[in-house]
Amino acid sequence: MSKGVTPQSKDYNAWYTDVVTKAGLADYGPVKGTMVVRPYGFSMWELIKEAFDQMIKKTGHVNAYFPLFIPKSFLAREAKHVEGFAKECAIVTHTRLKADGDNEIVVDPESKLEEEVIVRPTSETVIWSMYKKWIQSYRDLPLLINQWANVVRWEMRTRLFLRTTEFLWQEGHTAHATAEEAEEETLLILELYRKLAEDYLAIPVHTGLKSNSEKFAGADRTYCIEALMGDKRALQAGTSHNLGQNFAKAFEVTFQTKDNKEEMVYATSWGVSTRLIGGVIMTHGDDKGLRLPPKIAPYQVVVIPIFKDEDDKNSLINYLASILPDLHSKGYRIYEDWRKGSPGFKFNEWEMKGVPIRLEVGPKDLEKGQAVIVRRDTGEKQFIKKNDIAHTISTLLEDIQATLFEEAKVFRSENTHVVSSYNEFKDVIANQGGFVRCGWDGTEETEKAIKAETKATIRVIPFNEDTRGLTCIYSGNAAKHEVIFAKAY
Amino acid sequence: MSKGVTPQSKDYNAWYTDVVTKAGLADYGPVKGTMVVRPYGFSMWELIKEAFDQMIKKTGHVNAYFPLFIPKSFLAREAKHVEGFAKECAIVTHTRLKADGDNEIVVDPESKLEEEVIVRPTSETVIWSMYKKWIQSYRDLPLLINQWANVVRWEMRTRLFLRTTEFLWQEGHTAHATAEEAEEETLLILELYRKLAEDYLAIPVHTGLKSNSEKFAGADRTYCIEALMGDKRALQAGTSHNLGQNFAKAFEVTFQTKDNKEEMVYATSWGVSTRLIGGVIMTHGDDKGLRLPPKIAPYQVVVIPIFKDEDDKNSLINYLASILPDLHSKGYRIYEDWRKGSPGFKFNEWEMKGVPIRLEVGPKDLEKGQAVIVRRDTGEKQFIKKNDIAHTISTLLEDIQATLFEEAKVFRSENTHVVSSYNEFKDVIANQGGFVRCGWDGTEETEKAIKAETKATIRVIPFNEDTRGLTCIYSGNAAKHEVIFAKAY
Repeated sequence: MSKGVTPQSKDYNAWYTDVVTKAGLADYGPVKGTMVVRPYGFSMWELIKEAFDQMIKKTGHVNAYFPLFIPKSFLAREAKHVEGFAKECAIVTHTRLKADGDNEIVVDPESKLEEEVIVRPTSETVIWSMYKKWIQSYRDLPLLINQWANVVRWEMRTRLFLRTTEFLWQEGHTAHATAEEAEEETLLILELYRKLAEDYLAIPVHTGLKSNSEKFAGADRTYCIEALMGDKRALQAGTSHNLGQNFAKAFEVTFQTKDNKEEMVYATSWGVSTRLIGGVIMTHGDDKGLRLPPKIAPYQVVVIPIFKDEDDKNSLINYLASILPDLHSKGYRIYEDWRKGSPGFKFNEWEMKGVPIRLEVGPKDLEKGQAVIVRRDTGEKQFIKKNDIAHTISTLLEDIQATLFEEAKVFRSENTHVVSSYNEFKDVIANQGGFVRCGWDGTEETEKAIKAETKATIRVIPFNEDTRGLTCIYSGNAAKHEVIFAKAY
Repeated sequence: MSKGVTPQSKDYNAWYTDVVTKAGLADYGPVKGTMVVRPYGFSMWELIKEAFDQMIKKTGHVNAYFPLFIPKSFLAREAKHVEGFAKECAIVTHTRLKADGDNEIVVDPESKLEEEVIVRPTSETVIWSMYKKWIQSYRDLPLLINQWANVVRWEMRTRLFLRTTEFLWQEGHTAHATAEEAEEETLLILELYRKLAEDYLAIPVHTGLKSNSEKFAGADRTYCIEALMGDKRALQAGTSHNLGQNFAKAFEVTFQTKDNKEEMVYATSWGVSTRLIGGVIMTHGDDKGLRLPPKIAPYQVVVIPIFKDEDDKNSLINYLASILPDLHSKGYRIYEDWRKGSPGFKFNEWEMKGVPIRLEVGPKDLEKGQAVIVRRDTGEKQFIKKNDIAHTISTLLEDIQATLFEEAKVFRSENTHVVSSYNEFKDVIANQGGFVRCGWDGTEETEKAIKAETKATIRVIPFNEDTRGLTCIYSGNAAKHEVIFAKAY
């Protein structure tokens, strides 16, 4: 096929860009590093959004919307926070354009703002400035607010879905009366993220804590879900932060307790973004393009009628009218491709787009009262009698969802290494990739040294760590933690 | 009540602000003119969004997402467009903050951008720069794309929901092969806007054309839905633009026709925003607060159990367990207010929030096997036997939806004036307000003169205009159009 993608084995990055572009998921915008999410990609985002939105609403959260613009002084109130974002933020300084002498459009210098405004890289500061107004008493707590929004980080090296100047995400910002409640919330959300990744996106993830050097700028503790991509690099797929009282202090947010004392409020924040779509591509994609988990596939079934002339076409329209309404009524997302063009061309196109099931019908199938059903994940082809189609599709969609997850788990397991020396560690990181599970003495020096020498970072201190008898892979000292190292996106 | 709102008759603007604030709909953000949409207000927006999103998807539109940032040069490509937005746009000029000598955080001058970037006031330019890449042939048309997004216009005088520096909206941007198709699309969307306003928000609207001076910067023709608020001022509630080939020309977007010719693409764009929430407040609100149409009410029924002690409370919990599951299963949005506090306080609070139906149950109601049901729109109170509750609520919600719409139509009709002289026109505009329906000679001079003298503008040239025997209210010449004048938000 002339329109195929670069094979993964030849050039994984080129493969990724090919898939994103040729499957119609996204495109770069005119301003460097910005992203256009095209309808097919956006439809995936809508399905992800809907799934997670339901989860958070069921657990008592509500949505709201906070402003895009943050006063420069607000960002600076939390010292670590501003340090984390200062080097990559879009700054609004003027509010008017005018024509200059040569009829060029220029920025009107007279419209300079007194205080510059930052385009939100994240919303902790603007939200906590509002929480100061809204929270007075324990009766106002907990406050469990989320927003779906765009944020901006002026990135130098960008890649569609993974790292762009602007991206879409949800950011939850909760306020609590006690440290315990804040920690519970942080962990509740982490569990919802795990569920979203594993049960919907079919991406197996490790859950656990970030090391101090990898945590969010302004957090006490950052928990994360961490996945392994097809090129054996790690992807941070979601983070849930326990912010302690850092933002309450920065914005002086106190509340009156039941016993009439005044205390600082405890906070959490948490986010997942359109980056998840990049994770889906790189977890499941193959050399034919995308392979989508049915739960987040814009179309779960693509119907390809195979016809030569109008008579054939009309017979097939009638035939499908006895099959498809039942599928529609069961709520499946179905696309019928009635375009002119060769079946082979269409097969390739929909394989590229990763539709889980292809349903072909031609004149012969009509005669035999059947349809041809092909799985995108395995390529397996079956001839199914008309009356069994609905049942087969229901079973196959569940099986495809489960199979993609299982395959990804096997891949992760095959690419998780246990090493016994730092030399072996370096060799694995440099030549094999994947996760390396090993001991760490808990010092920042060790972490830095390993990063400098190998580019591998501690992706997560997994909840199921086991330090018994473990020594640090670098220093040889007793391990404080069992951690997972990898090179990451 | 100490927490009541300023009466409408005393000060309508103060009433509006009180309702927005005390019903928990919105708040000002820290940067001047920005808005925080609080959870209760955002829940209304979610319901409006869902209703309209379904309408556009049913008519073949898809959602996507385009970047927030537009190169300055793009905005300038369409001359009228830049003229319309140049004076009120947020301009990003730098991308880095740093600490200066005094440990203040300042903009790093070395991070100045080569070309300044505009925060989108609307997305025609960035979208048409992409359409240029995506459209080659008639087979790529029509392109029917919508996005739900935030946009920024640096406004000097702001009012929550009606005019803020940043607001949320949907913007549709479609591309067509012929002028006829573009016009059909423009009118289709206008009809969906009418439906959204009338059938969901219960706001009666006039549909028709804007005069040239009131049309969108860059459009050939702007159609609108226009409503009358409770203070007798008009509100432009939605606009649908036929852009002709203006943006195709500016971005050189051509396509190959079926006969292998090259032609310019035709365009439409259309939007409604969070301003609609302002319209709902000012169409239906009264001195007790909001009155919400059931279809977009975050809660359609608020349940107020009236109890003195734990025993009472437990009996009521059991009693309601025999009533509410049935209502939940029918999909009604219900809130149970189990807080401590006097019933009177709660009644006032939920009246302020405009919940269409209040369902009270106390120990006496339990004894009698009944509940008290109170309509927010009329205040009417009924005692309903337990088995009739579900049916009553279903009937009442429909009736409240219809009653709010009817009341608003009567109000509009009572405040639509036909005048026979310009003196009468000026008197009505100055002293009575409302819509004035009269003849206009079609000249910009007349329109300008009337605006300068009275502040009234042509809100719409209604589809049902009738110019027979009509003369211009200002010049006395034969009327080119029958138009609707008003002072507007």
